[in-house]
Amino acid sequence: MKRKLRMGMVGGGRGAFIGGVHRIAAAMDGLIELTCGAFSADPEKSRASGADLMLPANRCYGSFEEMILTEKSLPEDIRMDFVSIVTPNHMHYEPAKLALDNGFDVICDKPLSFTMEEARDLEKTVAETGRVFALTHNYTGYPMVKQAKRMIADGKLGAIRKVVVEYPQGWLTNKEEDMNYKQAIWRTDPKQSGIAGAMGDIGTHAENLAEYITGLRIEALCADISIFVPGRLLDDDGNVLLHLDQGAKGILFASQISAGEENNLRIRVYGELGGLDWSQQEPNSLIVKWHGKPMEIYRTAVGDLYPETKAHYRIPAGHPEGYLEAFANIYRNFAYAVIAKKEGKSPDPIYDFPTVQDGVRGMQFIQRVIESGKSNQKWVKF
Amino acid sequence: MKRKLRMGMVGGGRGAFIGGVHRIAAAMDGLIELTCGAFSADPEKSRASGADLMLPANRCYGSFEEMILTEKSLPEDIRMDFVSIVTPNHMHYEPAKLALDNGFDVICDKPLSFTMEEARDLEKTVAETGRVFALTHNYTGYPMVKQAKRMIADGKLGAIRKVVVEYPQGWLTNKEEDMNYKQAIWRTDPKQSGIAGAMGDIGTHAENLAEYITGLRIEALCADISIFVPGRLLDDDGNVLLHLDQGAKGILFASQISAGEENNLRIRVYGELGGLDWSQQEPNSLIVKWHGKPMEIYRTAVGDLYPETKAHYRIPAGHPEGYLEAFANIYRNFAYAVIAKKEGKSPDPIYDFPTVQDGVRGMQFIQRVIESGKSNQKWVKF
Amino acid sequence: MKRKLRMGMVGGGRGAFIGGVHRIAAAMDGLIELTCGAFSADPEKSRASGADLMLPANRCYGSFEEMILTEKSLPEDIRMDFVSIVTPNHMHYEPAKLALDNGFDVICDKPLSFTMEEARDLEKTVAETGRVFALTHNYTGYPMVKQAKRMIADGKLGAIRKVVVEYPQGWLTNKEEDMNYKQAIWRTDPKQSGIAGAMGDIGTHAENLAEYITGLRIEALCADISIFVPGRLLDDDGNVLLHLDQGAKGILFASQISAGEENNLRIRVYGELGGLDWSQQEPNSLIVKWHGKPMEIYRTAVGDLYPETKAHYRIPAGHPEGYLEAFANIYRNFAYAVIAKKEGKSPDPIYDFPTVQDGVRGMQFIQRVIESGKSNQKWVKF
Amino acid sequence: MKRKLRMGMVGGGRGAFIGGVHRIAAAMDGLIELTCGAFSADPEKSRASGADLMLPANRCYGSFEEMILTEKSLPEDIRMDFVSIVTPNHMHYEPAKLALDNGFDVICDKPLSFTMEEARDLEKTVAETGRVFALTHNYTGYPMVKQAKRMIADGKLGAIRKVVVEYPQGWLTNKEEDMNYKQAIWRTDPKQSGIAGAMGDIGTHAENLAEYITGLRIEALCADISIFVPGRLLDDDGNVLLHLDQGAKGILFASQISAGEENNLRIRVYGELGGLDWSQQEPNSLIVKWHGKPMEIYRTAVGDLYPETKAHYRIPAGHPEGYLEAFANIYRNFAYAVIAKKEGKSPDPIYDFPTVQDGVRGMQFIQRVIESGKSNQKWVKF
Repeated sequence: MKRKLRMGMVGGGRGAFIGGVHRIAAAMDGLIELTCGAFSADPEKSRASGADLMLPANRCYGSFEEMILTEKSLPEDIRMDFVSIVTPNHMHYEPAKLALDNGFDVICDKPLSFTMEEARDLEKTVAETGRVFALTHNYTGYPMVKQAKRMIADGKLGAIRKVVVEYPQGWLTNKEEDMNYKQAIWRTDPKQSGIAGAMGDIGTHAENLAEYITGLRIEALCADISIFVPGRLLDDDGNVLLHLDQGAKGILFASQISAGEENNLRIRVYGELGGLDWSQQEPNSLIVKWHGKPMEIYRTAVGDLYPETKAHYRIPAGHPEGYLEAFANIYRNFAYAVIAKKEGKSPDPIYDFPTVQDGVRGMQFIQRVIESGKSNQKWVKF
Repeated sequence: MKRKLRMGMVGGGRGAFIGGVHRIAAAMDGLIELTCGAFSADPEKSRASGADLMLPANRCYGSFEEMILTEKSLPEDIRMDFVSIVTPNHMHYEPAKLALDNGFDVICDKPLSFTMEEARDLEKTVAETGRVFALTHNYTGYPMVKQAKRMIADGKLGAIRKVVVEYPQGWLTNKEEDMNYKQAIWRTDPKQSGIAGAMGDIGTHAENLAEYITGLRIEALCADISIFVPGRLLDDDGNVLLHLDQGAKGILFASQISAGEENNLRIRVYGELGGLDWSQQEPNSLIVKWHGKPMEIYRTAVGDLYPETKAHYRIPAGHPEGYLEAFANIYRNFAYAVIAKKEGKSPDPIYDFPTVQDGVRGMQFIQRVIESGKSNQKWVKF
Repeated sequence: MKRKLRMGMVGGGRGAFIGGVHRIAAAMDGLIELTCGAFSADPEKSRASGADLMLPANRCYGSFEEMILTEKSLPEDIRMDFVSIVTPNHMHYEPAKLALDNGFDVICDKPLSFTMEEARDLEKTVAETGRVFALTHNYTGYPMVKQAKRMIADGKLGAIRKVVVEYPQGWLTNKEEDMNYKQAIWRTDPKQSGIAGAMGDIGTHAENLAEYITGLRIEALCADISIFVPGRLLDDDGNVLLHLDQGAKGILFASQISAGEENNLRIRVYGELGGLDWSQQEPNSLIVKWHGKPMEIYRTAVGDLYPETKAHYRIPAGHPEGYLEAFANIYRNFAYAVIAKKEGKSPDPIYDFPTVQDGVRGMQFIQRVIESGKSNQKWVKF
Repeated sequence: MKRKLRMGMVGGGRGAFIGGVHRIAAAMDGLIELTCGAFSADPEKSRASGADLMLPANRCYGSFEEMILTEKSLPEDIRMDFVSIVTPNHMHYEPAKLALDNGFDVICDKPLSFTMEEARDLEKTVAETGRVFALTHNYTGYPMVKQAKRMIADGKLGAIRKVVVEYPQGWLTNKEEDMNYKQAIWRTDPKQSGIAGAMGDIGTHAENLAEYITGLRIEALCADISIFVPGRLLDDDGNVLLHLDQGAKGILFASQISAGEENNLRIRVYGELGGLDWSQQEPNSLIVKWHGKPMEIYRTAVGDLYPETKAHYRIPAGHPEGYLEAFANIYRNFAYAVIAKKEGKSPDPIYDFPTVQDGVRGMQFIQRVIESGKSNQKWVKF
């Protein structure tokens, strides 16, 4: 296809964080251009944000409905190709549903939706419409995550026994939601975030990463869910025991009150032959600790990596790629799938991305972990 | 006191591991000399081991009873001063009890005993005899552990919210107990080790370190205890949720099947102002992650450390001290207490060491964690 | 300015490395769009490369002369704003000169030129034309480099005594230039690269970074320059002693035969009060080792950093930014300067970038270091 | 031999640093006992120091002459076996010479002597007397140094091209010699230390380690030697270019004014196939960076290490061994050689230690590096 895909964005106006990330991610590989947007529920703000982004006024819409319906009516060679949804959780479902129903592909921030019911309906809608749908569990976009997944799938570690996935942050150590901090306000508000705070915002990333890398599924969990900051309305910390299939055991913890931590997502997986260790803050290294042999460190772009690993970095060894590049991998792979669909081809599985099913699983995790947190029963089935 | 203390050792003959560690630890500071021993239950082996250690034959005993009773009958200027017990768990109680009852101070490997009842009886015996008793939870002997403990006690981190203590090892990944590996055989044998495997051998170190550093007490726990290696008789892995006093929550895990791990004891403590991070494999660094300020790394012998920190290293900055030095700190502090007692003085609290009460608490941990592992109830009171 | 700047690229066709980096860097912040290019000296290849990049055929030129002169003739609202030069060293001068002389701003890859004479002429041309000129010594674009520079400028380390800057790579360990490896071929070819190999390609980065961070100037040097790979025509390794102004001493080494190294640029600076340590492969940490106090680690986006540091990252703490983001900072700052010029404003000094003067200094370094390498005299004046 | 070796110490009285290190090192493995000493040139102080160490008064001598001659006259089953010399540099030669001439083996701190002439005479004396002589270049005692040496000797890295050895310390950043700091006073005093300061004290360690690990010999050097602290009499910093045999090039730097550094001896060696990286502050890891393959980290006691590596650690993996254990390895190996000699056997080469020849080489290094520092000529032959 000899043109860039045209993106329409929902959310991401002035003062937003993740919207800017999505725009950089979309722009990075020269496959996508931002064409239009409904950047705010306030039409004035939406237009002002669009002007900041150098969009023409007539492509800055006052609502997602207006954007989707207007764009649908535009000629094919002008019309947006897909919708990017970067709003708070309670505003994922409606634009996603409307976009899908009107023939647009969708890429959506995580978690998938506000409620389980919405999630299941989106899953059904994607199936029915046949549209491409991606969920930005961006951490699976890192090349060393691809390497880890394939090493395990290839049996390099032997049967998996133990998984430790952790996601400590410290940014909600104080009551930031009272300090006019937009990111904190909606994430701690049950009306915008849903039934979970930290467990939804970052716990789902940990859950998704663990299942992605190991290929195992969580079967049961036992959660200790806490609100540490007085007056906060949603959980800011959770410690969870896991039972995965094939007899593996695990620990998952996520926290936004781990003072001094930045964004320290880390996963360790132990099999019968060795263990893997990957940390998002040093994402270009994959430590492999072998039983009875020297430890190895696999590095982005060094040596004979798997094809799917090689497909997810851009520059030579020692030129560190980070969060934005991993995020851009999700966008690029989504774009490849959109293009493949337009060209009537099958997407290349090497360019994978999180799907609506991953999103449903994440919503299920939220449900179960909150349920377990309130239960005196030890294990809650997933 | 212008002479070295005389040590009699129980256990630690040819092929033992921890006996050699105790001897190095005792020798390091020039305060203690090995004078006699009952190195094996087999009198022949005991004498051979003693000869290896250049002891005269008449101080190499065929049993601990023989050693304790014979030494008691020797003139005071020749007689051993204290007993060091380095046998497997099921052989701690009897020599300890006999030594205490015959007027000898005791330093004993961990866990304290084979059963809870023995532990309580030793606690009582120590109280009644007034002897000095040390338990070698050696990890509390590291200078940076002292620094961490005092920083928390001084409120530098604010109120503690979360503790993550972990102790992964990989050496029992395979069924080593079938491969004539002495260390594995007794540790996986319920008749020698007690009701717990990994949770007793290293879980108690984690429990002890967490309570030592934080000054908090575990109030309840929820454990997932596993045997991964087929045919093994005791747990080789455990994941535990913790409730500590003052509202703190925690995670403890210990494992001997985390393939590729060496001896990776690590503790993280998060308070309202920042977090601490200490790893036994890099013991000379204490990482302090402040909320909203640059991280600091405290290093052994660098800068203005607390007096109790300064009291626990021997050489200047950048000359790494390790496991043996930390272990030697327990011996040295025990020796100071023995000397103080002989001289009728109070021991200096700066030279602390784990006590019989710590040992009782460790045995309680073993009980509770195994009980919780078998329970469908979520929380078990400590 | 409510439109994107239009970029015309010279070089960077199929099979190139750095051209792709420049395009990503230019695209990242939504300020620049690729409008046209002369991607190859072969007009066919240039057009094919342009088509890959989704450019219209009429903006894909067969030579830089054609591009510059044609674009100059286009209406102002279509015409490119600036030229990006990403060719091998011997092809920097001519397009840069022509672009400047025809009223275009220029951003150029390093080193500045093929010869010292070209460098001086470009310096003069920039002065005479008043155009904006940036040189992509991209490593100065990292936020932690800005922090380091300012800490030193503010005297936090006291007077600087010692600088150690090193840049080991291993990718030319074997004779890659004989293996049809395009990047290796031109870099080891005196006709394309100039008088220096490794010292020009990466030694100049080290020199630039050292002078940028310390604010000191190299006054004399003593170099040991080597060709390790038999048959290679230019240096692949160099060790250099430095005398800087204000009495500081230093070491600089750069190597492309340090087998196993990736792109390990690192700088350490020691003053009277402490030392700084920054490594490009872990660019989000700046280690500050204080004399007699705990080490500090400054991290991208954590805490109260300098304004110029804050101006050079995009996302919150713990979301690692890497090489492409640092490179994009050079492009963004250049774009700001171009826009400021168009708007008749002064550029904001917080958004700095390497200039033609830095480029002249780099060429001088190449001259002197090669001269010293051949000399029996100890010190060569810079 | 069924008794401990008896050690007589020269130097190491109250307030000394290295004497205590030697005593711990000697005690650690149960092979050596401190029997007598001449701990100070002041007989009163010598006796007081001996009493601290629980020696009988009649084995505390007022001078090394008295010790050596008196001990020689004692019956063989009481007499000391060897002399340990831990005095400042200017006091190495005389006691070493006297001990050797009177039939005692000698272990001596580094550098070997005050002058080159003394060094050569000691070399001759050792040869003539046939006594065992060890020099405590303790850093070669680390197990991972043994592993590195053998890997290179076995050709794992291919032919060696480049060596970077560095030894930055910061403890002489200020004029400590004016602050009544005993360690600083003699090390900066030409009458006690010799012609070099930092280059003798730690530069020789770097030189010895580089030659030991690589098996190469320095053939020429080019040094930039500095005194940074005003009024100091000897060098506190030096940067040196090296030519080694077989065409290898190198850099050596040593510094005692690198503020914030502790004792950061590090060596990197690059061959045709990969590079080694070992740091004394994390001595249990040996990083091997392979060209085009994942990096490996060899760890003390993990996996299938060389026999000479295995012979130099005491405890299982993950139980960090440090400076004192490495130092103790020198003492243990020396003890083995002394015992072998007494038993008329050849020493086992696996238990190696630095010899008088290493000491002569170190003195040569001091000569040449100081000479080069004053020369305008680029290269000085070693």
